[in-house]
Amino acid sequence: MSRVYNFSAGPACLPVPVLEEVRDEMLEYGSSGMCVMEMSHRSKDFENILHDTEQTLRDLMQIPDNYKVLFLQGGASQQFAAIPMNLMRNRVIDVINTGNWTKKAIQEARIFGQVNVIASSEDRTFSYIPDLENLQISEDADYVYICQNNTIYGTRYPKLPDTKGKLLVSDVSSMFLSEPVDVSKYGVIYAGVQKNAGPAGLVVSIIREDLITDDVLPGTPTMLKWKTQADNDSMYNTPNTWAIYVCGKVFRWIKELGGLTAMKAINEKKAALLYDYLDQSRLFKGTVEKNSRSIMNVPFITGDAELDKAFIADCQAAGIRNIKGHRSVGGMRASIYNAMPIEGVQALLDVMEQFEKAHA
Amino acid sequence: MSRVYNFSAGPACLPVPVLEEVRDEMLEYGSSGMCVMEMSHRSKDFENILHDTEQTLRDLMQIPDNYKVLFLQGGASQQFAAIPMNLMRNRVIDVINTGNWTKKAIQEARIFGQVNVIASSEDRTFSYIPDLENLQISEDADYVYICQNNTIYGTRYPKLPDTKGKLLVSDVSSMFLSEPVDVSKYGVIYAGVQKNAGPAGLVVSIIREDLITDDVLPGTPTMLKWKTQADNDSMYNTPNTWAIYVCGKVFRWIKELGGLTAMKAINEKKAALLYDYLDQSRLFKGTVEKNSRSIMNVPFITGDAELDKAFIADCQAAGIRNIKGHRSVGGMRASIYNAMPIEGVQALLDVMEQFEKAHA
Repeated sequence: MSRVYNFSAGPACLPVPVLEEVRDEMLEYGSSGMCVMEMSHRSKDFENILHDTEQTLRDLMQIPDNYKVLFLQGGASQQFAAIPMNLMRNRVIDVINTGNWTKKAIQEARIFGQVNVIASSEDRTFSYIPDLENLQISEDADYVYICQNNTIYGTRYPKLPDTKGKLLVSDVSSMFLSEPVDVSKYGVIYAGVQKNAGPAGLVVSIIREDLITDDVLPGTPTMLKWKTQADNDSMYNTPNTWAIYVCGKVFRWIKELGGLTAMKAINEKKAALLYDYLDQSRLFKGTVEKNSRSIMNVPFITGDAELDKAFIADCQAAGIRNIKGHRSVGGMRASIYNAMPIEGVQALLDVMEQFEKAHA
Repeated sequence: MSRVYNFSAGPACLPVPVLEEVRDEMLEYGSSGMCVMEMSHRSKDFENILHDTEQTLRDLMQIPDNYKVLFLQGGASQQFAAIPMNLMRNRVIDVINTGNWTKKAIQEARIFGQVNVIASSEDRTFSYIPDLENLQISEDADYVYICQNNTIYGTRYPKLPDTKGKLLVSDVSSMFLSEPVDVSKYGVIYAGVQKNAGPAGLVVSIIREDLITDDVLPGTPTMLKWKTQADNDSMYNTPNTWAIYVCGKVFRWIKELGGLTAMKAINEKKAALLYDYLDQSRLFKGTVEKNSRSIMNVPFITGDAELDKAFIADCQAAGIRNIKGHRSVGGMRASIYNAMPIEGVQALLDVMEQFEKAHA
């Protein structure tokens, strides 16, 4: 067996100790006599898994008591519809456009109401986060929507926008659990877990209780109404039990490392290794403005498509996978999520250094 | 390690050889250097998994070329909304009510249009399938909706209803891949896989191509529109990659057993063991009319709640789990899906026989 360093943007690498535990429990979880995949979601064993997973997350993120944690299906793409369906009253929202994921959210919200793009970084290929102080927040906006870390462009909000008292809704998929956050600053903070916390097919949405109501748009499917799941502890129907189980293990792994403060320190160290190299390199360069850089997704280029190709081939030979950039940006992208060990980043740097020497 | 006989109605038992393969591939799938959970859904390795999974299913069910296979999230409960949103033109549908799952489908479809309940077995606690010949099909019905095997009440359609030319839509969750079906008789045939084919969080929907259009109800979320997923080979966004992978292995396991004809013979044999015993027992009795009996879910009672309780305790002691009936029916229920070995059914019969002797 030979494991690679997997820099995929998502689904992405998982902690090896978690995979080992999951493997060892495949034929029998605890003394249940069965695998978690075979368990009734109404069983005591699974209820304990669900409860522990939620509680560990609440501890990690210090989620206030007046926030519900929902485990949902359908990915962020489904929340792009569920959010307006659950939150629109005036049918007007404000969005800061920082790339593909906000574009999709905008397009979907327009099925249901008016969307004002109050700031955008499209003018320079989404390589920065727009000014967050002097936003023209709409008087009647039901909420302000952001994607706090853009996976494709490698940007991250250096701070939260001033929404002038309006509700903030944030997609944090690609930075979920990478650093501490103050949940109380959000109305809704949600993530597809397949980037930084578990297998695909699960969204964790943390929603302020008073926003979960029966007052949804006409025609909202029962499954998209948050209240349906909130009233049933995410078990209105069978949830993605496997993903909840794996996430629970990842959450505990983070807790054992020291929680989100420790996780952030590790992530910043990994990111700094890459950015420091990029800042002094004469061959490679980062594509994002310094104060908007993500510590999770690091895009970089040589500026020469042939060189990029040769470099990616060298990475491949060195046991590095999925370093190719998104087709809309080109070049390379290193997604260095929580589970990427510092040794992986070092291995990438070694290839970069050798490649730069060879092509100086 | 001690595995139990798990008679859960779903999520439910999986074939042990499948679990063993999955365990052995946990740290590395093939020569990919990673677990399937860590794989980009856009990677060659995962594309092959998706393609193989679909092809094996097409072979097993002999799915005609003019049917699409979609891998969806959100369970049957989400399809209860997606089906009317995608298929309603006149906003009128006919439903045969055979228990909880059609009740939920009716309730959800009423958000979008008129639902005519054209037959029901509610008068006798859903213990039979209504007459299927002389149905009052509505002139303007967009489709006729059925649940072909009711998990809770243990009924199964002895044949398909005469829809007088109207489109048939069938939820086959709890009988999926338990026997051959003629896909061409359906407009839509779909199943949540967590009962008979894999882990929770995946719906397989087999839809006649001409029914997949842009002509959906106003306000349909992009993720609920079948065309979104059909145009993107179920990868508009990240699908439940893990469940697709496990299902692929279960599909191949069935194929190696001899396909659906062989599977049906095994299932009928297991069911006959139970029903034959029930028919001659002076203590236990089945709750379903003979010609409506499911070969997947077998509910039975003693008629005495205290005896039921004592029997369930005896089962527990014998390594038998989840034999308690659904709260709305009481008594016991043995779900004997594909992965339940005949030894499990025999173990249950042994406890039944001993219990009957002791309480004669």
